Amino acid sequence: MLILGLESSAKTASCALGADGVQIALYTQNCGLTHSSTLLPMVEDMLRNCGIDKGELTRVAVAAGPGSFTGVRIGCAAAKGLSWALGIPCRPVSTLEAMAYSYAYDIAESRERRAEIISCEMDARRGQVYNALFEYSAEGLTRLTPDRAIALDELNLELSANCSLFTVHRSLSDAWGVILAAQNAPDAEPNPVYLRMPQAERELLKSRDKKAERGEN
Amino acid sequence: MLILGLESSAKTASCALGADGVQIALYTQNCGLTHSSTLLPMVEDMLRNCGIDKGELTRVAVAAGPGSFTGVRIGCAAAKGLSWALGIPCRPVSTLEAMAYSYAYDIAESRERRAEIISCEMDARRGQVYNALFEYSAEGLTRLTPDRAIALDELNLELSANCSLFTVHRSLSDAWGVILAAQNAPDAEPNPVYLRMPQAERELLKSRDKKAERGEN
Repeated sequence: MLILGLESSAKTASCALGADGVQIALYTQNCGLTHSSTLLPMVEDMLRNCGIDKGELTRVAVAAGPGSFTGVRIGCAAAKGLSWALGIPCRPVSTLEAMAYSYAYDIAESRERRAEIISCEMDARRGQVYNALFEYSAEGLTRLTPDRAIALDELNLELSANCSLFTVHRSLSDAWGVILAAQNAPDAEPNPVYLRMPQAERELLKSRDKKAERGEN
Repeated sequence: MLILGLESSAKTASCALGADGVQIALYTQNCGLTHSSTLLPMVEDMLRNCGIDKGELTRVAVAAGPGSFTGVRIGCAAAKGLSWALGIPCRPVSTLEAMAYSYAYDIAESRERRAEIISCEMDARRGQVYNALFEYSAEGLTRLTPDRAIALDELNLELSANCSLFTVHRSLSDAWGVILAAQNAPDAEPNPVYLRMPQAERELLKSRDKKAERGEN
């Protein structure tokens, strides 16, 4: 299986190539340019530099959220386009799960491996984070909570002293984690997972509520 | 400081961009193509995708060895060429030290941070590994041994149970570690560091010894 991974849920744009669990290439950038203009050129360059034709890809994996609404939409749209044009299945995965896989991969070879809790967070604004908890042990990664939007205070209460917290540099999630997470995921249509309503929809509902209060339709 | 990092000491070709300790981009590939044909196109693509002109670079860092003789020569030659053409200083760093920095960066945010030994190895063939030991603690990374070519048996004797050993995936060293290591390195001419003589030189010496034994000149 030659799998292309895409990750654009936050500030970082990242693409990766994996063949049967082996990393062929990983390309990540965080230069502030919009993902819509960088993601596909990065993919094109990566394939060309690896001497791999896009027709050789057998699957495309994408971080489908949660994350920045625009970023998640761009990732899913790119994955849908590639999947359809190349006639290959797509595997959408949770952005937070991809982060956990990427981190577990990085620390996998530490000798003193004990079961530990991995907490993945992304800034969700308005005092909340997108979060999921995982347990990482010799058996691999086990999900402990669903992806959720949760207040920071609430998360702090939940977390024991045994947690690995992502900080700035670790939050630069990459597409290699997407490929790792996709190895255990089913093929599916990549649809953005927001967890919360986009601001435009929240505003619409609010204005409807106000109209209802005033007895308008 | 906008620094370009290059790493081609082993099978992986990797380039990275860093600005004052922040990762702007990281591009790593391990597709089996020769570094001489992939490394500079990767740099060119990475800069273009980041919207950064090569004239904006202020420094180039390179993994100068130990490693594959050909790989190390390609990295140093590319760094020399860029350094001279762009009129910017170069910072050669130890390949093993770059690996240690990359690993320390990946595990930096684990909460249970205690001092631990990091052992970096690369296959040096003929029953040996290129190796250096580092101590990683809250104060950062401290080198415990020089880079050396050492028999695997000898290294096994040296290593306590407290070691973090790189295995397959961690040996895919990347240019971000090169940039991190370069932050503490002086500017210098990038010359390949082999630790052992290239095979051609060994053969030459051997044939000279044989001639001397036979009384020839």
